[in-house]
Amino acid sequence: MKRINIGLLGLGNIGTGTYKVLELNRSHIENTTGLDLRITKILEIDTERDRGFTVAPGVFTQDAETIFSDPEIDIVIELLGGLEPATTYMLKAMNAGKSVVTANKAAIAENFEALTEAAEKNNVSFRYEASVGGGIPLIGTITESLCANEFSEVMGILNGTTNYILTKMTEEGRDYDDVLKEAQKLGFAEANPTADVEGHDVANKLSILMSLVFGVRVKPEDIPTTGISQITKESIEEADSEGCVIKLIASAYRTDDGFECFVSPIYINKTHPLAGVRNEFNALFIKGNAVDDLMLYGKGAGPLPTASAVLGDVIAIARNR
Amino acid sequence: MKRINIGLLGLGNIGTGTYKVLELNRSHIENTTGLDLRITKILEIDTERDRGFTVAPGVFTQDAETIFSDPEIDIVIELLGGLEPATTYMLKAMNAGKSVVTANKAAIAENFEALTEAAEKNNVSFRYEASVGGGIPLIGTITESLCANEFSEVMGILNGTTNYILTKMTEEGRDYDDVLKEAQKLGFAEANPTADVEGHDVANKLSILMSLVFGVRVKPEDIPTTGISQITKESIEEADSEGCVIKLIASAYRTDDGFECFVSPIYINKTHPLAGVRNEFNALFIKGNAVDDLMLYGKGAGPLPTASAVLGDVIAIARNR
Repeated sequence: MKRINIGLLGLGNIGTGTYKVLELNRSHIENTTGLDLRITKILEIDTERDRGFTVAPGVFTQDAETIFSDPEIDIVIELLGGLEPATTYMLKAMNAGKSVVTANKAAIAENFEALTEAAEKNNVSFRYEASVGGGIPLIGTITESLCANEFSEVMGILNGTTNYILTKMTEEGRDYDDVLKEAQKLGFAEANPTADVEGHDVANKLSILMSLVFGVRVKPEDIPTTGISQITKESIEEADSEGCVIKLIASAYRTDDGFECFVSPIYINKTHPLAGVRNEFNALFIKGNAVDDLMLYGKGAGPLPTASAVLGDVIAIARNR
Repeated sequence: MKRINIGLLGLGNIGTGTYKVLELNRSHIENTTGLDLRITKILEIDTERDRGFTVAPGVFTQDAETIFSDPEIDIVIELLGGLEPATTYMLKAMNAGKSVVTANKAAIAENFEALTEAAEKNNVSFRYEASVGGGIPLIGTITESLCANEFSEVMGILNGTTNYILTKMTEEGRDYDDVLKEAQKLGFAEANPTADVEGHDVANKLSILMSLVFGVRVKPEDIPTTGISQITKESIEEADSEGCVIKLIASAYRTDDGFECFVSPIYINKTHPLAGVRNEFNALFIKGNAVDDLMLYGKGAGPLPTASAVLGDVIAIARNR
């Protein structure tokens, strides 16, 4: 059994999910991978909240430096979210020789070069499967399983909140405001829903995908982005009358002289596989010159699906050590 | 640039596709992976056929031993198909210290233990992504990206021929025999279609999936298997009247006292993601205790999609050398 010590930055929703999945599936992971994964330090101020499990004494810390300077820690999982201090902490961890796993799409979309260069310079791994598509293994599929392909197109539904709203509007003939309020009540939408409904969250994800799929860097703010707040019951009925549904689509594709990309609600023909992606589910459709059309479908958010991706990255790093 | 030499067993349809994709995407693969992949020997009797490319002098051989004994060869790709001599050759290659990549579902389903044990004993890699789901990265997803999950269920459409036939019967109201003949004319069905239409091909794939997903070995002949040759226009209309389509489904799931599995045409509700998998496409639906529902969709056969999976395996091995 190979023991791997992990420092966890942040024990919020995703951090808690990651801790729980690791404990729940500990014996399964040990049996199938031969890895003994231990979270030995957790950076978190809120040590008192009832999360449904007990953290051993001495594991909580309020000082990130004790994680970076701990020679026993192999991998740092960053689940603080936001640009800072997350970015600085990830760079510090890599400069201290630790591999880093993160779910932080904003930090990666903004600082992709700095983070990947730090990994290369320090000869450590930097993985971020959970940052795009939650539990759906988009990044591993693109950069590993399909790496023999040249890609011409990616197109997907990458935000569960907006897809939930559009699905309810479509299937129940309801108004945008009405469904948004319900989604907020159910916890599918934030109190301030701007990042989701105006497409900024999707633009972050598309920026990361374009780096991986096409090797081009387009900053999220440079992606033409339209959200769903202007979509009405009537526009959905009009789409329906043409055999289509309206989906908030992230799209990037090769052209004769480069790339085009956008985030926008568009008509999707009902026979297209993306039309059947309902409620909070996400899906990515990708076209490679060998594999042809491929689609991955699953839960793009939530503590447990995201934990699945975070731990998949941890295990990939641990297997190669 | 890391040079990796490859011995290829068989230059039939899949072998030819693999050779072509490697040449077509050579500079892309070099740029993104830093690997210089070279097919230096090819075991093939038919050296004269026009495949659209020229094999350099001295690459063709009729003697498999020259591949196994070549100290320069790192990886052997087995694309002969069938149980023998494919199985013996794979074992010989691994015993000679070569990693092996194969697309041969029959050989793996029948000899899974012997092959995986040979890989372990010789400390080489044995990868077989292309053996299930063609270009769809099912195996990598299950064993790598999702390895932090315990799985409760897999369910999928794993045969393009039968899915093509059922789709045409459903959408065009045609008879089984009529569509089968058309599929044979178009090359989607074999002259002897038994292995496809009676579900044996799917049973082989389900057997491999159960090994990976649940860690249980069920031989293909022990999986209750029903094909689609008894499906009539009328049975499809009856399903339709109940809001369902008929799909040839491979299914395996946990029960209180073990596992159940079957291959059979069953009703799938039209709102289920598998209902929208049309024509020659394949899809696998899988349920993990962290990721929840995940579906992968794509081309389950054909020289180029299969080549995508074969080369993905080759690159995975080469990256870790």
